[in-house]
Amino acid sequence: MRLIADNLQMTRPALLRALSDRDPGPIGAVAAACEAAGADGIDLNTGHLGRDAPEKMAFAVEAVQAATRLPLFLDTADPDAMAAGAAVCRNPLALNGFSLEPEKRERILPLAVDRNADIVGYLLSPGGHVPRSTEERLTIAVELFQAAAGAGLPPERLVVDPVVAPLAWPDGSARNRDLLDIVSRLGDVLGHPVRTMAGLSNLTAGHRHRAPRIRIEQAYVPMLAGAGLDFLLLDIHHRETVHTARTCRLLLDDSVFSWAAVP
Amino acid sequence: MRLIADNLQMTRPALLRALSDRDPGPIGAVAAACEAAGADGIDLNTGHLGRDAPEKMAFAVEAVQAATRLPLFLDTADPDAMAAGAAVCRNPLALNGFSLEPEKRERILPLAVDRNADIVGYLLSPGGHVPRSTEERLTIAVELFQAAAGAGLPPERLVVDPVVAPLAWPDGSARNRDLLDIVSRLGDVLGHPVRTMAGLSNLTAGHRHRAPRIRIEQAYVPMLAGAGLDFLLLDIHHRETVHTARTCRLLLDDSVFSWAAVP
Repeated sequence: MRLIADNLQMTRPALLRALSDRDPGPIGAVAAACEAAGADGIDLNTGHLGRDAPEKMAFAVEAVQAATRLPLFLDTADPDAMAAGAAVCRNPLALNGFSLEPEKRERILPLAVDRNADIVGYLLSPGGHVPRSTEERLTIAVELFQAAAGAGLPPERLVVDPVVAPLAWPDGSARNRDLLDIVSRLGDVLGHPVRTMAGLSNLTAGHRHRAPRIRIEQAYVPMLAGAGLDFLLLDIHHRETVHTARTCRLLLDDSVFSWAAVP
Repeated sequence: MRLIADNLQMTRPALLRALSDRDPGPIGAVAAACEAAGADGIDLNTGHLGRDAPEKMAFAVEAVQAATRLPLFLDTADPDAMAAGAAVCRNPLALNGFSLEPEKRERILPLAVDRNADIVGYLLSPGGHVPRSTEERLTIAVELFQAAAGAGLPPERLVVDPVVAPLAWPDGSARNRDLLDIVSRLGDVLGHPVRTMAGLSNLTAGHRHRAPRIRIEQAYVPMLAGAGLDFLLLDIHHRETVHTARTCRLLLDDSVFSWAAVP
């Protein structure tokens, strides 16, 4: 399970300012701190970039790759910004992402094919809703897989994100239980191994206190790992959660276990 | 996932002395402390009882049930001691346990049928060895299930323990990965839902330092919980591990999630 930092959110005031000043320093600093904290990849989440979105995205990508060679997940809903970012990206690249929503499917998915990049596909309805049942999710997974194949994407480039639900939702924990099932069964259902990703911050969204949030993350992360999750998107500065995730890797990796490697 | 305390080990000097003095106090005190720490059941592990084994077991059972009404797992390889303990047990009872080893199968399994008690069945070869592969384990599980049914045990009385391997074994972590698979697939393979149990202390056996042991337990317990484990046998005074296990229960239970319930 590889850890993707979700810390590079361009909507944060300091980064928003850096972007409008075209100052690569603060952006590179966040990226370097993610790498130092043990990230295996960085999600560059632009939010709404407003005017000059493509140019801003390209600038942000350059600022990040001046600081680190880690894989970059370009996280934007703007196809033009995505194209501009992908065009200048020299680090390993993933587009984050597309779904069955028509615009994403028609304008973002083909970019991954063009760039021969990984792409995250979300299990959302064509209307952008989170499906309720396992059956609905699996049906959408099949459609997503077929849409990707139909666009010419090699299946090994697809990373499916079944969308973690906030526990604050009335059926949040039931949905997150189903999600474990999806992660472990997806390859069998699709008849092809497919990598999976989950965004952890959603899980505890809306709750303010750090200690119980970490406690919940530390319980859910090994369940995801045990189910076979490939990419975990998380706040890489949640140190205890990162330690737990690394310990999971130690237990699940093929290499011989060593006590010396326990974080 | 219910938590069964493995703390009542009669081989500990204080308890050994209490047993030979026929002093119920120390035995009851350990049991009461387990309940206070949140145990859902207590494993009464006799070790080798020597002379008067049946009478000693009966005494220990009485000492425990004077202190708590929690379910008792009678953990002995001595069929006569098991019979004597079961005969006086008024708390909910589980026998721990039997396997395909001829003596256990022929002398302990029938006791569970007679007493209408739960019984733990270990996935061990008829020679008492831990099987290597998932296939071997599943084959043994089928034989165990058939042996139990053949002896007249209702399937809902069976609790299968796939035997956690020490990480210190060269293939320990691979075995424990397979174990997760066994726990989640067992019901499908047997064509009948069967409860499962795992002993956590084995995992870190042989390692002295507490912090990394707890770290490992905290990572593996949610994997077991996510795979659907029913009973976790553990040191109930590993407070952090217990908190993690309770948080798992919160995430996996059918009830509506509440932040107030996070340990």
